[in-house]
Amino acid sequence: MSDVELWRELGQQLRVDAVRTSAEAGSGHPTSSMSAADLAAVLLAAHFRYDFDEPKSPANDRLIFSKGHASPLVYGLFRAAGAIDEDELMTYRQFGSRLEGHPTPFLPWVDVATGSLGQGLPIGVGAALAGKRLNQVPMRVWVICGDSEMAEGSMWEAIEHAAFYELDNLTAIIDVNRLGQRGETMHGWDLASYTRRVEANGWAAIEIDGHDVEQIDRAYREAEGTTGRPAAVVARTIKGKGYSKVENHEGWHGKAVAEEAVEELGGVRNIRVDVSKPEGGPGRTFAPSGAEWPRYELESKVATRKAYGEALAALGGERGDVVALDGEVSNSTFAEIFRDAHPERYFEMYIAEQQMVAAAVGMQIVGWKPFCSTFAAFMTRAYDFVRMAAVSRATVKLCGSHAGVSIGEDGPSQMGLEDLAAFRAVHGSTVLYPCDGNQTAALVQEMAEIDGIAYLRTTRADTPVIYEAGDAFPVGGSKTLREGDDVTLVAAGITVFEALKAADALADEGIEARVIDAYSVKPIDAATLRAAGERIVTVEDHWAEGGLGEAVLAAVADADERPRVVTLAVREMPHSGKPAELLAAAGIDADAIAEAARRLVREYARA
Amino acid sequence: MSDVELWRELGQQLRVDAVRTSAEAGSGHPTSSMSAADLAAVLLAAHFRYDFDEPKSPANDRLIFSKGHASPLVYGLFRAAGAIDEDELMTYRQFGSRLEGHPTPFLPWVDVATGSLGQGLPIGVGAALAGKRLNQVPMRVWVICGDSEMAEGSMWEAIEHAAFYELDNLTAIIDVNRLGQRGETMHGWDLASYTRRVEANGWAAIEIDGHDVEQIDRAYREAEGTTGRPAAVVARTIKGKGYSKVENHEGWHGKAVAEEAVEELGGVRNIRVDVSKPEGGPGRTFAPSGAEWPRYELESKVATRKAYGEALAALGGERGDVVALDGEVSNSTFAEIFRDAHPERYFEMYIAEQQMVAAAVGMQIVGWKPFCSTFAAFMTRAYDFVRMAAVSRATVKLCGSHAGVSIGEDGPSQMGLEDLAAFRAVHGSTVLYPCDGNQTAALVQEMAEIDGIAYLRTTRADTPVIYEAGDAFPVGGSKTLREGDDVTLVAAGITVFEALKAADALADEGIEARVIDAYSVKPIDAATLRAAGERIVTVEDHWAEGGLGEAVLAAVADADERPRVVTLAVREMPHSGKPAELLAAAGIDADAIAEAARRLVREYARA
Repeated sequence: MSDVELWRELGQQLRVDAVRTSAEAGSGHPTSSMSAADLAAVLLAAHFRYDFDEPKSPANDRLIFSKGHASPLVYGLFRAAGAIDEDELMTYRQFGSRLEGHPTPFLPWVDVATGSLGQGLPIGVGAALAGKRLNQVPMRVWVICGDSEMAEGSMWEAIEHAAFYELDNLTAIIDVNRLGQRGETMHGWDLASYTRRVEANGWAAIEIDGHDVEQIDRAYREAEGTTGRPAAVVARTIKGKGYSKVENHEGWHGKAVAEEAVEELGGVRNIRVDVSKPEGGPGRTFAPSGAEWPRYELESKVATRKAYGEALAALGGERGDVVALDGEVSNSTFAEIFRDAHPERYFEMYIAEQQMVAAAVGMQIVGWKPFCSTFAAFMTRAYDFVRMAAVSRATVKLCGSHAGVSIGEDGPSQMGLEDLAAFRAVHGSTVLYPCDGNQTAALVQEMAEIDGIAYLRTTRADTPVIYEAGDAFPVGGSKTLREGDDVTLVAAGITVFEALKAADALADEGIEARVIDAYSVKPIDAATLRAAGERIVTVEDHWAEGGLGEAVLAAVADADERPRVVTLAVREMPHSGKPAELLAAAGIDADAIAEAARRLVREYARA
Repeated sequence: MSDVELWRELGQQLRVDAVRTSAEAGSGHPTSSMSAADLAAVLLAAHFRYDFDEPKSPANDRLIFSKGHASPLVYGLFRAAGAIDEDELMTYRQFGSRLEGHPTPFLPWVDVATGSLGQGLPIGVGAALAGKRLNQVPMRVWVICGDSEMAEGSMWEAIEHAAFYELDNLTAIIDVNRLGQRGETMHGWDLASYTRRVEANGWAAIEIDGHDVEQIDRAYREAEGTTGRPAAVVARTIKGKGYSKVENHEGWHGKAVAEEAVEELGGVRNIRVDVSKPEGGPGRTFAPSGAEWPRYELESKVATRKAYGEALAALGGERGDVVALDGEVSNSTFAEIFRDAHPERYFEMYIAEQQMVAAAVGMQIVGWKPFCSTFAAFMTRAYDFVRMAAVSRATVKLCGSHAGVSIGEDGPSQMGLEDLAAFRAVHGSTVLYPCDGNQTAALVQEMAEIDGIAYLRTTRADTPVIYEAGDAFPVGGSKTLREGDDVTLVAAGITVFEALKAADALADEGIEARVIDAYSVKPIDAATLRAAGERIVTVEDHWAEGGLGEAVLAAVADADERPRVVTLAVREMPHSGKPAELLAAAGIDADAIAEAARRLVREYARA
């Protein structure tokens, strides 16, 4: 069989397999797979370099299905490559199968989960940055994009960043099948509408008939030969191609098609492709350069955001695998300290938080440990990316600065007040919230070892140093700063200092307050909280929902002795003002804490 | 004074006021205001049509500062227009002042809060859609954009949608001052990099010197005269323009400059501009066309997502102010039923959830009641927009479909499992989660009356109808479906049916279980929960954090008699499978509920 014949036959095989798997499952997206089958066939047979036995090798090309719903096509490719067999193929979408409805790293050859559209290309930018700038290996990232998902702004963040970083190792294959889920896209088959826009961003663009395997091969060669900029293959395709009953018809998105399609497609094939392996090794690593960890003097003052930057720079000296990304606020988050210490491992992502998190997900595929930073308020911009990073089983570290009303004059748009809730509700996440510089440094060091999504919340203002340099702050722990049996005050971050002041005031009145610094918001130190007595006041610079207070409530929910818990939190929309004014207005300052504790002790004694 | 002289002087006045206000406050963004001062001066004096006494009139032009940090410029404009006086101007950033660090609708002439970059232009798209397609009035939306924020993908969603909808009543003014917060933008003063990209999207683009008032005036005229497409004025400007010490210097973002700048700028001025008022009235309204509310028969089955679509269509018949937007999944969310009933009030937003929510925020400025829908999982894409919508005091309704593991085979990327946590943690939000069709219809009707952000969570599967059509479901209420004093099962949505089955099983064993349908997750029916006895099992198709379980815990946290609460929720990453398999695997099906209840009754009796 000639190459061209092989490609054509393989395309038909991929279509047949898409039909078979989804017919067996009774659901899935065969028509979206059929449009891209020829694009995928030529890629696998003639261009893709990948060692299926070493999926994590940085030398590998990467293939990311940004249009994750074309999962039948992904699994068909894996069968053609010999990675999975016929029996496993037919388990598609069954409970317990590795072949999920949308691809996830449950399968070792799927680097990242896709299925939330508009994420594969930005992740590909991260993978390409890792290959070109970190590992410096001749790998290529291939991203198969749907035309519908080009409406996601995140795709255009990726396109702009890829051009800026001159990622000539990135190829976007846009499967322009004209039809979205519920009808035609904005641009239909107007290929030029895509070409014009990617070219305006500085990309090369190649328009082709996405069912002509020779044109596809030439386009991939052209993309491979393009230097200094990424290339997009803009392919006109037909949704449902190969089965006349559904070809280019609306109403067939996400629906299994009848087995009779197999016949029209020429029957089941069993072509096995020997996928080329990459040449060369894993490329560059960074040797530890030595670390001087920051040590803050007791009773001095430093902002935890600054300690983050200083600790991250130290961590980067200690570990060559640590990289940092920031969303154009590195002089506020203090990621700039890392940038200055380790410029080759720092990536400016400009004001594009989705791209920032996606790039981190792309980099961690081959083992880099990315730390992303921006204001806590703006990290929420990337929430869907963080959610999907968890589905990807990705290990990514996030730092949100400028948390809460304590930022002061800038006002509510800049105050992260929902970040604890949002990032607690991410599967397998760790949520940390230090109050002082030494604690921050220790937690940054802890973060390096955490699998999954780890989120660190930092504060704008300088805060007093209350812990010794070198004190240990294990994830899941807490610090009891003051002992007292009348009432327990549970605080974290900026409110620790308010709680300490409140405890002083209460002590003057003869009320002994325990103060717990719950720096590990998730997992929280349930054992300590359950032993904290029958009256608890929690206080947080965050909305009342989903943050520290509810984390404490969850920890004591089914204890034998359930404490009475009063949760102090921000409940009205803050305005601008001085930090102290805003803490007072929100009812989370020392006075408010003391008053809540006083009332609790009084009422509970009466009850 | 000639027009040109006036414009120049007004530009200097705006600079002086920016310097004065931020010097007085000791913080703020004067340099970012100074770059755009001439652009703003010519706009106010010669192009903007606005009635300061009727800020909500649909006939008004809209001025949106997408670069919200240029708030000193906003307030300088208001002083020049006579809306605020010198004394109020100088309260900038003080506690209690309406002149917040970033603009918010605390001031009646600020339509929407900005300050999270990349949001003003997408909101402007909504305002322009309202003007052109709903009210059909000759208003114009002017959006002043920073060059840094052009890196946000949401800006490009806006640019694509504005072209698609031929919004020739929208003008974007891009203030290309070259400098972001921490250094140069990706494109510096390469105006063509912006022009090329907006033109590639089908916009007109006009490059000018942003400090030449005659060029500015001509550009605005050209924009006003452009038909069939939006226009962008791409203006080369100098950050800190007018004060030589900071002009075009890095390191001056977000910093007050010395009062000495006032002298170099020629001193304080008191020019008062009579802003032109718009002609014409509020434009088109839609008369109620009559509504046939859906009524589902007891024991029939219907998906709550379908009931959402049918109820929304009915609501649209009852109220002419209801509009709907969907993110290219209207055949899944069933927003298509509204589209077919009220095509003039339906807006397809394609796969661009940020633009969808932003457009809704833009439309509600003049009183439209927008309902947005997409999968619950994908609504998280717009989380920062929802957060900011709350700061905007916007009234927007959101519907997230396909919640939880119960969607089945599509797998975790499509499962909304964090939406309750995310949307509970939005200031002033309402979170509703119906289980059956009649309840859904009632809650859609309730939503129309809710101020602020209201979120409705719907389910993919058909579920049994258990309530009568016409039953009332007030916000903040609950329904006790089964009485029983041994244990209380609190469920919502899909888990209501599992809880009912569990109660049946428990009854067979002699355990009397109360079943509460907590359809109003926020505000939750605290009174009923506090009276629900000493043993509670909560069960939700959602992560354990921030959802129904923690809402219940918060409601009973400081009750005199605190129940022991066991929270059942999704705790492991789900896979693909049949809905029943996944509910069982997550430990939230009837068997798991019954077992938890059994154990609680047994252990608590022992304790």
